[in-house]
Amino acid sequence: MFSEYTEVVDVLGTIAFAVSGVYAALDRRLDLFGVIIIAFVTAIGGGTIRDMLIGDLPVTWIRDIHYTAIILGTAVVVILFRHGIRNFRKTLLVFDSLGLGLFTIVGIQKGIAFDLHPVVCVALGTITGCFGGVIRDMLLNNIPIIFQKEIYASACIAGGTVFFVLRLFGVNEEINESVSIIAVFLVRTLAIRYDWKLPDLYRKINRRKS
Amino acid sequence: MFSEYTEVVDVLGTIAFAVSGVYAALDRRLDLFGVIIIAFVTAIGGGTIRDMLIGDLPVTWIRDIHYTAIILGTAVVVILFRHGIRNFRKTLLVFDSLGLGLFTIVGIQKGIAFDLHPVVCVALGTITGCFGGVIRDMLLNNIPIIFQKEIYASACIAGGTVFFVLRLFGVNEEINESVSIIAVFLVRTLAIRYDWKLPDLYRKINRRKS
Amino acid sequence: MFSEYTEVVDVLGTIAFAVSGVYAALDRRLDLFGVIIIAFVTAIGGGTIRDMLIGDLPVTWIRDIHYTAIILGTAVVVILFRHGIRNFRKTLLVFDSLGLGLFTIVGIQKGIAFDLHPVVCVALGTITGCFGGVIRDMLLNNIPIIFQKEIYASACIAGGTVFFVLRLFGVNEEINESVSIIAVFLVRTLAIRYDWKLPDLYRKINRRKS
Repeated sequence: MFSEYTEVVDVLGTIAFAVSGVYAALDRRLDLFGVIIIAFVTAIGGGTIRDMLIGDLPVTWIRDIHYTAIILGTAVVVILFRHGIRNFRKTLLVFDSLGLGLFTIVGIQKGIAFDLHPVVCVALGTITGCFGGVIRDMLLNNIPIIFQKEIYASACIAGGTVFFVLRLFGVNEEINESVSIIAVFLVRTLAIRYDWKLPDLYRKINRRKS
Repeated sequence: MFSEYTEVVDVLGTIAFAVSGVYAALDRRLDLFGVIIIAFVTAIGGGTIRDMLIGDLPVTWIRDIHYTAIILGTAVVVILFRHGIRNFRKTLLVFDSLGLGLFTIVGIQKGIAFDLHPVVCVALGTITGCFGGVIRDMLLNNIPIIFQKEIYASACIAGGTVFFVLRLFGVNEEINESVSIIAVFLVRTLAIRYDWKLPDLYRKINRRKS
Repeated sequence: MFSEYTEVVDVLGTIAFAVSGVYAALDRRLDLFGVIIIAFVTAIGGGTIRDMLIGDLPVTWIRDIHYTAIILGTAVVVILFRHGIRNFRKTLLVFDSLGLGLFTIVGIQKGIAFDLHPVVCVALGTITGCFGGVIRDMLLNNIPIIFQKEIYASACIAGGTVFFVLRLFGVNEEINESVSIIAVFLVRTLAIRYDWKLPDLYRKINRRKS
């Protein structure tokens, strides 16, 4: 259903999120299987929810054993070489933002393949990008990352909008995908670096309440 | 599949739950996209789980862009006029109880359309009514409302029972729907007002434990 | 789709998990309907997620009213006779481990019936066994049991591996199922009794961090 290029993007996203899952689980000191399960859930959570919503069943990782192999392999490599890493949280952040961009575009492409409305496609991209991390955070009893006053879902929506605007202008598909992925990654990374915030809805409410 | 009347009920339920989602998110001081996502999840969560359970895929809001439009419109209106509201929690409660009644009946009607056992229909109605709120509460890190020693799921079960009893007596479908919706709303509202409680299972256990 | 023996295992697993759900809910002092809902979710949660993942829809308990009857019956009996039980947590643990073993094998058999890869079958068995308890714990705001530094998912994976090894040797199906169920139960129970732990991934990290 996908172009070869989108498949490559999908594999890269799976690896990036598996890495982010391993670091999140190591940070919470889970045991070996706990780490592997969190890597798995982070990597396939978003796509699984997307597939269950549109009815593309069995979901991808059940049909295609390659996903399991990629995730297990990634987890083993990261666990073995974890001592080389000094700053877990920073590493987690980079891989998480990378996975976010990659999976947003994979989700949008799947929505297009199912002939869905562009707004729904962007929603599916956002779900694909965000919900692996949301499930990871819920299982680890963290507050889901998308609600930690960070630009997160917003980055997906921004990147998805870029994608459909460029598509409207007839930009080559693979270039468009690459640009949109970078857009998501940049919005998220710059937002953290420069502490971007969305409109503050609360000033007046606070004054009134206090 | 549904009668026009049930479709109207579905739209009203979507609006009521979107409103309740916006107030819950504002109360937790989420940013703009956070508020919209919570409005969305509250409004379509229950129906989405219902559709995934019975296999009516893609789920309704993915097939039908109107839901997205209604929820976004509702969210924008409520955000713009939020300053007129003094008591967030009370407003949240009214809209939440309203959505509960409306969606319970939509879920039951869908179960009937799929030829399911009345008990399963009531379960589907309860899921449609309750789980948008449950997901909202879980994402906001609140204890799910259905377990806060309040009559909540019980109101859905009561209303669903009313529906099937009236149906047995051959009461006109639209009248039956209206009565059952009001039943859910009243049971929940009166339960809160007069502090109704379900049978206490714990007295003897406590004595024994202490 | 299943052999009669697997169906018996499925019913026993449903009962065991319904019992464990009732005890967990009583321990958190939920009201009557809260207890019944938690019993329900614990008993059908894992199988429901499994069926949604592989697309066997509507999920089993919606098609087959017997599950609802069994769970309601079990819940009523346990609630009525709860005063005879002195140690809730121990009872919960026994029934939880029993359900874990029974459902792991049911999930694996379903994977085989859908012609899936053995590794995916073991994953489905683990999901069937673990996720009823995970949802129960998340709704009750407990840390999911699979991450409490206990052998839990690992017991499913061990039992599932036993199953496929014995299958490779052509062991009779029903004997194989029984042995694998006991394997899961024993691994979990002995792990708790003798405080088994998985490899410690953290020693070096800690030294470096401190």
